[in-house]
Amino acid sequence: MFPIPTDLADSIPGASGVADALASMLQRVDEVFRRELTSDLPPVRDLTSHVESYRGKMLRPTLVGLCGLAAHPAWERNPKADPAAMLTDAHAVVAATVEMVHMATLVHDDVLDEADVRRRGRTVNRLYGNEPAVILGDYLIASAYHLCASLPSPGPARAIGRAAMITAAGELLQLHHRGNLSLDEPTYDEIIRGKTAELIATACELGASLSGAGRGAGAALADFGHAVGSAFQIQDDLLDLTGREAVVGKSVGKDLEKGKLTLPVIHHLRACGPTRRGASLALIGSFAEGRSSTGDPDMSRALLDAVRETGSIEYATARARAHVEQAVRGLETLPVSPARSVLEAMARAVVGRDH
Amino acid sequence: MFPIPTDLADSIPGASGVADALASMLQRVDEVFRRELTSDLPPVRDLTSHVESYRGKMLRPTLVGLCGLAAHPAWERNPKADPAAMLTDAHAVVAATVEMVHMATLVHDDVLDEADVRRRGRTVNRLYGNEPAVILGDYLIASAYHLCASLPSPGPARAIGRAAMITAAGELLQLHHRGNLSLDEPTYDEIIRGKTAELIATACELGASLSGAGRGAGAALADFGHAVGSAFQIQDDLLDLTGREAVVGKSVGKDLEKGKLTLPVIHHLRACGPTRRGASLALIGSFAEGRSSTGDPDMSRALLDAVRETGSIEYATARARAHVEQAVRGLETLPVSPARSVLEAMARAVVGRDH
Repeated sequence: MFPIPTDLADSIPGASGVADALASMLQRVDEVFRRELTSDLPPVRDLTSHVESYRGKMLRPTLVGLCGLAAHPAWERNPKADPAAMLTDAHAVVAATVEMVHMATLVHDDVLDEADVRRRGRTVNRLYGNEPAVILGDYLIASAYHLCASLPSPGPARAIGRAAMITAAGELLQLHHRGNLSLDEPTYDEIIRGKTAELIATACELGASLSGAGRGAGAALADFGHAVGSAFQIQDDLLDLTGREAVVGKSVGKDLEKGKLTLPVIHHLRACGPTRRGASLALIGSFAEGRSSTGDPDMSRALLDAVRETGSIEYATARARAHVEQAVRGLETLPVSPARSVLEAMARAVVGRDH
Repeated sequence: MFPIPTDLADSIPGASGVADALASMLQRVDEVFRRELTSDLPPVRDLTSHVESYRGKMLRPTLVGLCGLAAHPAWERNPKADPAAMLTDAHAVVAATVEMVHMATLVHDDVLDEADVRRRGRTVNRLYGNEPAVILGDYLIASAYHLCASLPSPGPARAIGRAAMITAAGELLQLHHRGNLSLDEPTYDEIIRGKTAELIATACELGASLSGAGRGAGAALADFGHAVGSAFQIQDDLLDLTGREAVVGKSVGKDLEKGKLTLPVIHHLRACGPTRRGASLALIGSFAEGRSSTGDPDMSRALLDAVRETGSIEYATARARAHVEQAVRGLETLPVSPARSVLEAMARAVVGRDH
């Protein structure tokens, strides 16, 4: 599960009730997941059971649950309300749907990135080849909408379909700018808002609406999700540049190899002088053309040193922190509750993580 | 549109009313399609407008409409019922959804097949690369379910999600058997029933259910769709082996190149003697290993001659015809109507086509 600080139960009064309600929902998500992905065909079963291991942090299902709790109207009447019965089967179905759509994205992304490692295990494309990986992604997407259509209302499927469109459009925008060494920060922001933040925002908003929250709370939590999602992606991009595979648990150094400029590099190229820029562009170019890679530690270190020198790691970290602060401020419109406090702690944990 | 014989209006009394109702629905499908796939982002718009050209035969939307007409309860009361008002907006939405899911499959299949040509134009993977093609497919799938969730009932999305799962499972089964030179006919049947027939069957069944048809008519049309779909795929596989790219309008010779054994080849290997089998297996192996391809006309001709000699083209054609006859017999449970006659003619046209 996503690293909510373990000492929350002590530091936030009422947090243990929230954690219990969440754990019980995540248990149901797990059951829904297994039931939906069962197949009679052994080649299909092998693949779906392999991707089960991708479900690591469960960030999106956790957000469906926490937003479902934090936006519940019961807190308005009673700040000591019992969260135990706040999360419904519909929350679990939507949480599982969102995670399934997200997993499909991971499987397809690993094909695009030619990544070998995910959650410390081999990727589907590495183990089985690109073709089964593409079709497995399609199978997961189909399963997700099949599952979501078990709800009586088409509303959640409509919202998740829309979010998945925006996710794909964000990825297409990123592919369009691949190798563009003058990519600017507003375009980077637009890309990560699409490819990462939109689905997270939808998870938050649906969690709230399934709890019977009003439009105001739903919109506030959608904003919260957009901000947390953007912070999350900036942190991910930082880890791709600075992290070690053994700690991060997935392939690193892929962004530059694939010609994707991320925030620290964009800032570096903007902040450094013209001479340094020439040298850095040459280094970046050598990554993108496959002449170097994480396999060449000297070149990686030379670029990383240059990026550090312009304070670009700090800049990107500060941007991620600013998103988190914006997210937390947005929560202030919700009634005070232990669920709201846990949600706040969770948002802060996004920028602290090293994986 | 799918090649319904043009002289139908003369040979089937009342066919022109059916053709008009269908044309009007297909017009609405077109509008729904364009509206759903509009994007503010130019890189996305370029790609979606490119795949618009893939909508050629419109087999699946046509079947939604024709089944919607043929299964309409009005014919039971009046064999001269007016088909003009039988097809609803929901028919158009479901028809567009099914076609969008199918187009996504085409885009992903072309990546898997490394195909260069589709509907006489360049494929997305050829023009833009594999990565945008994979994500464009995901965008189309998301658009499809977003569109389908505009209907008040989640039923059609549930059915289409299930069909898309079975489609992907069929493709995974096919990939699993890639390079398996002892693939048998029952497994081939299972593969094509999954990867092609299931979505067609669902199109037929949903067309009927949206017209208020009973379960019996829905099940009969699902069976019809399975049979027509299997015939369609056998014909497609025959064209990949025997057709010329200029006539077929898409890359041919891809099946053997990709290690996929199709019905005529499966029959040939079963029917020929052991000496011939050795020679044919060697030829097939050389295609699969890329040592030959459609670029080597001598080797293609040698294999084709051998396949012809065992009567395997006729065998596969006869199997396709048998599926069509089974499909047509299944229609007999529906009330007599011009729509039923047109549906019957359409099923027969599947095996006659050369593209």
